[in-house]
Amino acid sequence: MIRVLLVHDECLVRSVLADWLRREPDLGVFHAPWRGASRRVSTVRPDVCAADLECADSYGIPPLGELGARVPGVPPPRLLVLASANRPGLLKGAVEAGALGYVDKEGAPERLVEGIRLVAEGKRFVDDSLGFGFLRAAEMPLTRRELSVLVLAAEGASVAEIAGSLHLSNGTVRNYMAAITRKTGARNRIDAIRISQGEGWL
Amino acid sequence: MIRVLLVHDECLVRSVLADWLRREPDLGVFHAPWRGASRRVSTVRPDVCAADLECADSYGIPPLGELGARVPGVPPPRLLVLASANRPGLLKGAVEAGALGYVDKEGAPERLVEGIRLVAEGKRFVDDSLGFGFLRAAEMPLTRRELSVLVLAAEGASVAEIAGSLHLSNGTVRNYMAAITRKTGARNRIDAIRISQGEGWL
Repeated sequence: MIRVLLVHDECLVRSVLADWLRREPDLGVFHAPWRGASRRVSTVRPDVCAADLECADSYGIPPLGELGARVPGVPPPRLLVLASANRPGLLKGAVEAGALGYVDKEGAPERLVEGIRLVAEGKRFVDDSLGFGFLRAAEMPLTRRELSVLVLAAEGASVAEIAGSLHLSNGTVRNYMAAITRKTGARNRIDAIRISQGEGWL
Repeated sequence: MIRVLLVHDECLVRSVLADWLRREPDLGVFHAPWRGASRRVSTVRPDVCAADLECADSYGIPPLGELGARVPGVPPPRLLVLASANRPGLLKGAVEAGALGYVDKEGAPERLVEGIRLVAEGKRFVDDSLGFGFLRAAEMPLTRRELSVLVLAAEGASVAEIAGSLHLSNGTVRNYMAAITRKTGARNRIDAIRISQGEGWL
């Protein structure tokens, strides 16, 4: 029996998906929203976490790291993500979190079952249709520092506030913002934020 | 038999939801993404469109009007939406589009079946848990004109570009932006866009 924790922020969708997965006799299915998922990992002790990369909180960046929360003596669950090729930033985050499985939400649901079984064996599972998303993820143009500036700007912080929280001068923050605008091919700061949120970089 | 067209932008989710709905013997279920949904309405001629308010395109505002596309001699489908209380702007859009049914995605999936049956009879169906969302929708602080300015700003347009497309002076656009920032309780333009997108106003 493979114990699966399905993580999705919409109760209606995750209940129906869990029901649908339960038709497979080798799957034991639990479900949770992102908020509180790490606690559920400790109690359910799933073999596989199947997590939707769309997250209702914190600007849509899912806290993937929390799903690996270790219980002493118990191996962490293997991670499979439900992804889409047009949010390369979220794919990149999943790669960095060590996800083994990548199921395209534009595909057939049977792929999710296949993916869960392979990932449970410690094998990789990647939908071909996500290829272009991985390519764009590899081309992510911003440095970590530029991203942290942009995250604060997207929260509505002023140049002075960003400078204050990152211990930079106002001029340096303006230089970063100019570099971000240029590298994302944006017309201005608001456009840079729009483009970066669309790609899932922040 | 109630003919239902389920509109959702994720193929995996809408296939499983459709499968799940098909267990009800009185429902004939079809599904489509938002893009192309109006064409499917003309061919499927559903009694009820059950549409997810999250839309992958055009800044997440679903083209609800297109679902009503009339075929001569055939009544337009009745509209039920899958909604969440924390996106009051999307709820407001659904009210304006004349939706009869409002199912909370935070609720149990059985509510969707109940909702479809009532809406098919021309009756209203509203999940109580959406109440706070409707309250906030009624409190929407921006005028239509302010919204059209903000939509362009959120697309990355400059003050001069906004002025050009709305046939206003630069000063008037700046006045609108100042009013928008004040009315949304934002710190600056970027913050006003962030707040308004979060609420689903744009």
